Amino acid sequence: MKVLVINCGSSSIRFQLLDIRSVEEDEKLLVKGLIQRIGEEGASADCTTADGRSFHIEENVPDHKRAIEEVFNLLLKSQILRSASEIEGIGHRMVHGGELFRESALIDASVENAIEECCELAPLHNPHNLNGYRAARELLPAVPQVAVFDTAFHATLPEKAYLYALPYETYKKDKVRRFGFHGTSHRFVSERYAHIRKDSEPSWKIITCHLGNGCSMSAVRDGESIDTSMGFTPIEGLVMGTRPGDVDPGALLYLLNRFGSDTARLDALLNKQSGLLGISGRSNDMRDLLKRRGEGDRRAGLAVEIFCYRVRKYIGSYMAALGGADAVVFTGGIGENAVEIRAEICEGLEPLGVCLDPGRNRETLGVEAEISAPGSPCGVWVIPTNEELLIARDTVRCIIKT
Amino acid sequence: MKVLVINCGSSSIRFQLLDIRSVEEDEKLLVKGLIQRIGEEGASADCTTADGRSFHIEENVPDHKRAIEEVFNLLLKSQILRSASEIEGIGHRMVHGGELFRESALIDASVENAIEECCELAPLHNPHNLNGYRAARELLPAVPQVAVFDTAFHATLPEKAYLYALPYETYKKDKVRRFGFHGTSHRFVSERYAHIRKDSEPSWKIITCHLGNGCSMSAVRDGESIDTSMGFTPIEGLVMGTRPGDVDPGALLYLLNRFGSDTARLDALLNKQSGLLGISGRSNDMRDLLKRRGEGDRRAGLAVEIFCYRVRKYIGSYMAALGGADAVVFTGGIGENAVEIRAEICEGLEPLGVCLDPGRNRETLGVEAEISAPGSPCGVWVIPTNEELLIARDTVRCIIKT
Repeated sequence: MKVLVINCGSSSIRFQLLDIRSVEEDEKLLVKGLIQRIGEEGASADCTTADGRSFHIEENVPDHKRAIEEVFNLLLKSQILRSASEIEGIGHRMVHGGELFRESALIDASVENAIEECCELAPLHNPHNLNGYRAARELLPAVPQVAVFDTAFHATLPEKAYLYALPYETYKKDKVRRFGFHGTSHRFVSERYAHIRKDSEPSWKIITCHLGNGCSMSAVRDGESIDTSMGFTPIEGLVMGTRPGDVDPGALLYLLNRFGSDTARLDALLNKQSGLLGISGRSNDMRDLLKRRGEGDRRAGLAVEIFCYRVRKYIGSYMAALGGADAVVFTGGIGENAVEIRAEICEGLEPLGVCLDPGRNRETLGVEAEISAPGSPCGVWVIPTNEELLIARDTVRCIIKT
Repeated sequence: MKVLVINCGSSSIRFQLLDIRSVEEDEKLLVKGLIQRIGEEGASADCTTADGRSFHIEENVPDHKRAIEEVFNLLLKSQILRSASEIEGIGHRMVHGGELFRESALIDASVENAIEECCELAPLHNPHNLNGYRAARELLPAVPQVAVFDTAFHATLPEKAYLYALPYETYKKDKVRRFGFHGTSHRFVSERYAHIRKDSEPSWKIITCHLGNGCSMSAVRDGESIDTSMGFTPIEGLVMGTRPGDVDPGALLYLLNRFGSDTARLDALLNKQSGLLGISGRSNDMRDLLKRRGEGDRRAGLAVEIFCYRVRKYIGSYMAALGGADAVVFTGGIGENAVEIRAEICEGLEPLGVCLDPGRNRETLGVEAEISAPGSPCGVWVIPTNEELLIARDTVRCIIKT
């Protein structure tokens, strides 16, 4: 089944076309691409096929409908498809499913309305995700479309993990609770871990660390997320590129008073000026910071140190939440590639059973591997994430079910 | 040496008179008491002597100077002193020492100025603490006075533990960093632990849990605090009576928008309406909540559950920060007395080496005891805190040093 996976932002669309025969067996990426600057000057559409051929279109792309048409044009131009009607299913990344979606869903009118309802929880994302769906429906009305939610994997969080210690009405009336994000990634690596270890560990507890530009961790027991570091929004938890993760609420009140109650200024500070960039004053890019640290930049080093320390503390925290862990799993751009970071995170965790093998760690760049020392009570793994593949799989599952 | 210990709030003064011959050997509490409703209608002054005699004065107490005079009146009335001039030293609890005080200090003009400088960091506390000092100085100008800071014990925090991942300027210019509080209590139980175990553990790593109406934890290595759960303010960290502890910064932005940027409303929500009270909707008192849970009150049970889960996660987190721990130490009103809470916190921590002995736990109410199972890799202790005693000891030390 040829499945188009769409991740639709405000001014860009990432897409992949995959051919999925049977889930987890015969799966093939055919092409991936990106439409940029939708509704702006100098829009562009690019794709690369699995066999390495690249295609580029420069065209005026005023809206999402036109952008989806450009996706089809690229698929035809690259000769991956002869006609857009060969697409048998479309899977959309949806950021927020609120409490309404515990799993992926075939989109019909009622699902569309429910996603619309979740827009107030993710006003910067859900409306664009929906735009992508509506544009594709106009162009291919007969093709089934599926919504795969970034929050759904964390729907299994118990009350004690999702409730903040705020007045209960802020949950009941204002819907403030921990939702968690990056669910598709945490679920992908959890399912992959379960697949690899199915013979040796029928029951398992792991800690998944998605470390990219956004960063989050999850405590996963037998495939169910029981806690996660992002909360009501993706600001909470780990140190990220430009977001701070955990901060004393009292410090925010203090800054707000300094800012003359300018909420927009605090918002910009927390979303754009904090994290690795804020500490280092230099960059939100871990590669850059590691390079600068090597050259003796003290604050770049500090940013890296705080980043690693925070992850290390969450590993301990989730071991306590799970009652021990069978493995720590690294994924995401930093998790898959930053050898130094993985080593620094695991430093001193030996008494908790986490023993890294320095050689295995050093050799593992962007590929799946166990990097713990032989006999380490808690395994350490690198499992590259593939959110698009999971979206495609869910799309196939939802279509077959109906 | 007869030492008066004073904890001076906005409208109340708690005090104790102790006789300290040699630190940790011949220490005697003589009397403790409380002046209430200073500057209000119906002020009162009460004290109880070590041998159980109680005294009460009802008198107009317009200001802190008059309140300190009432303290002296009570000491004379109870015949503990024949003259206020028998007091040889006065120790003050000071909430905030900022980055200026790493330890207790004999108060002179420059120390007074430095404490004044820290007032902006604790506007609700330091000014009253200073008032108490000034009133006592007017009445007993010749008696040396010592400031003991609630923050000082955490002055050893490394940068990675005290910096938030906010723009570095918010630290450098606005002084926003983790300070930590309850330092006198964490230090008291740490020193006591070191004293008990000095023969068996010359080097040690412990996690101290001060669980009272305010709650905080600290990771302590060989007497030095290396991390703590309260931050720039006492709102961060654990769930408390009416404070929430950790909350997603993004959730606060969201609420602030709902409140029309009303910072005062958010402040009240975080300081007065959250925590155990906020979740349960019933009470900020743990004893009350445990009783209600026993009667089937679901939200009271939820408040207790979230409280324990948060402590449990911090235990794991600090094990990771310390690289394992020799003991978890409970103190404070809840920590010393709430058998059920200690049991619930430790539940499921056996794989991390924390094995409670249910019998020992049950028998330990407000007294010092090891409550872990024999052979538990990580000990569990109850050590009643005594902040006044530590303040008195520091007062003697500072006076002797000069």
